[in-house]
Amino acid sequence: MKFGLFGGAKTTPGSGVGDSQSYHKFLDYVQAADDLDYAGIFLVEHHFTGQSQVSASLNLLSYLAARTRRMRLGTAVVVLPWHNPVLLAEQVATLDLLSNGRVDFGVGKGYRDNEFESFCIPKEEATERFDECMEILRKSWTSSNRFSHHGKRWHFENIVVEPRPVQTPHPPFWMGAGSREGIARAGREGFNLLLDQLAPIELCVDRVAIYRKALEEAGGTYHGARVGCTRALMIVRSEEERQKAFAMRRRTLEAIGALARGPGAERYLQPSSFADADLAKENAALIGTPDEIIRQLKQLQSGGVEYVLLIDASGNVETLRRFAEEIMPSFAETTRTLSAVRG
Amino acid sequence: MKFGLFGGAKTTPGSGVGDSQSYHKFLDYVQAADDLDYAGIFLVEHHFTGQSQVSASLNLLSYLAARTRRMRLGTAVVVLPWHNPVLLAEQVATLDLLSNGRVDFGVGKGYRDNEFESFCIPKEEATERFDECMEILRKSWTSSNRFSHHGKRWHFENIVVEPRPVQTPHPPFWMGAGSREGIARAGREGFNLLLDQLAPIELCVDRVAIYRKALEEAGGTYHGARVGCTRALMIVRSEEERQKAFAMRRRTLEAIGALARGPGAERYLQPSSFADADLAKENAALIGTPDEIIRQLKQLQSGGVEYVLLIDASGNVETLRRFAEEIMPSFAETTRTLSAVRG
Repeated sequence: MKFGLFGGAKTTPGSGVGDSQSYHKFLDYVQAADDLDYAGIFLVEHHFTGQSQVSASLNLLSYLAARTRRMRLGTAVVVLPWHNPVLLAEQVATLDLLSNGRVDFGVGKGYRDNEFESFCIPKEEATERFDECMEILRKSWTSSNRFSHHGKRWHFENIVVEPRPVQTPHPPFWMGAGSREGIARAGREGFNLLLDQLAPIELCVDRVAIYRKALEEAGGTYHGARVGCTRALMIVRSEEERQKAFAMRRRTLEAIGALARGPGAERYLQPSSFADADLAKENAALIGTPDEIIRQLKQLQSGGVEYVLLIDASGNVETLRRFAEEIMPSFAETTRTLSAVRG
Repeated sequence: MKFGLFGGAKTTPGSGVGDSQSYHKFLDYVQAADDLDYAGIFLVEHHFTGQSQVSASLNLLSYLAARTRRMRLGTAVVVLPWHNPVLLAEQVATLDLLSNGRVDFGVGKGYRDNEFESFCIPKEEATERFDECMEILRKSWTSSNRFSHHGKRWHFENIVVEPRPVQTPHPPFWMGAGSREGIARAGREGFNLLLDQLAPIELCVDRVAIYRKALEEAGGTYHGARVGCTRALMIVRSEEERQKAFAMRRRTLEAIGALARGPGAERYLQPSSFADADLAKENAALIGTPDEIIRQLKQLQSGGVEYVLLIDASGNVETLRRFAEEIMPSFAETTRTLSAVRG
């Protein structure tokens, strides 16, 4: 089993902490994670939230390419309908080159209504826009000659996309999915899979099995590093800390809901990649003492989960260090094996 | 007088040097320039050249934000008609934040016919697309509330662009211009000015005067760091090296012409921002011994040029070091003054 991070910088409105300060604190934190041998980070990307969530994730990761040595640099996710496919292919390839082939490219169709409204893109066009962008991305990275594309939304004539990414044929694509059909499609189409922070352990295990079956039936090769399971992390030492952690967890879940809904709407509980689980099942989060967290992780591991992406609410290097010192060693053997698989 | 760099990584087709190797050599070179107290870099951005010129300049600069400490990080230029204005505003602001306010944002309308053809954007729309993008960029960085934009090409509803750039109200805009009218407009509209590598010294001096007059008539404050004058640099020690340098200069000018034209066209000598000078006037390039180059620079300086952007054909740290040790000291006093002005 190996461990990465999931999240990103943001400011708390009214906290008096500026964008710059909150970003630099986060960047120092990621560098510390690299020093502590965390395997990767998946950075969120959102627009127009008013909380200064990361909007230009590929730029932040380009900076981190210089500040980190080993960790994988991922997006979770770049919403393809917002982007010019060719400029995006150039940016991702450049990041792959700057990081010596460490990019994990998470992509999505978008799910936040307020983002669709703000970009003035009808949500019902999400799938066709996603598909056209994917087609152009793949062509950009695999075509050995100049090519042209004349589709519904995009037109390019006689182009060659440069630079070439370092990973061949291109950085792995990752996709968030939650529904049975969405997960099976990710497997069939050869995407790696991001699982949400909301599903309880049993559901994660089911999802890995669905993914693995679909991937293998389509001729793909499964290994544990192809599925990243996001988990909120709060290490506690006392009953009081435990109660505070649960209260914080509830606030976080409410905030996720509020952001996804936008003002005045009640749409978050619709099935979508990150939003179709039962929020009440609190065994989804890693809240407990190191021993309790190790037991939860072993449950996930025995169900086939081998890559856990921590959402560390503290944002504190001390939490990273405690997890690395008190929890990671229980999984050291499998971490080495998994690294060998990834080559 | 102060000195920066102008250029970017690219590969020579057939040289056997891959994109990755050529990029990393370039990045090491820029870091060395920062160590040697060069004041800034302006990075070119081009698409589909087949020579792996930098396509995602803001990503390369984000990486360099981590690798450099003091130098300004500039674009020369981002062609606005290719970009989604809001995603661009987010990227530039993020870079400004990552670099602690070191961004010089060079923008242009585009001039290469083959880029317009490949993006399937009619060249006659360049100006209106540039203007609409500029309007959105300015609004993104100066609006204190959420705003909407419904223009000819772009629609955004109820957005706030985050993060906020560090420089207030935003990173300075730079624009390349060569014609009298283009330069005067840059001054009137408060842009900083990039001058090309082709104009002989006398023409540079004229251009600075035109710019300064227009800027001041519009109520702006002129200082020397607002005009960057690009100059090719080849330090020679012997007559043989001098002849080789002139031959290389001719090949470079031919290559610039070929790239700007695209296959089969003869359009490079049309007036445009980087292409309206007499190519034969070789006093445009800094080719000579250190003493000869110092004399040329003093001529520029007495004509009001105070920021020279070197295009170092060698791409070699040794050239940077020789220039820093043998030429820069002759301008040390004015460099300190200029830094104070910008401080």
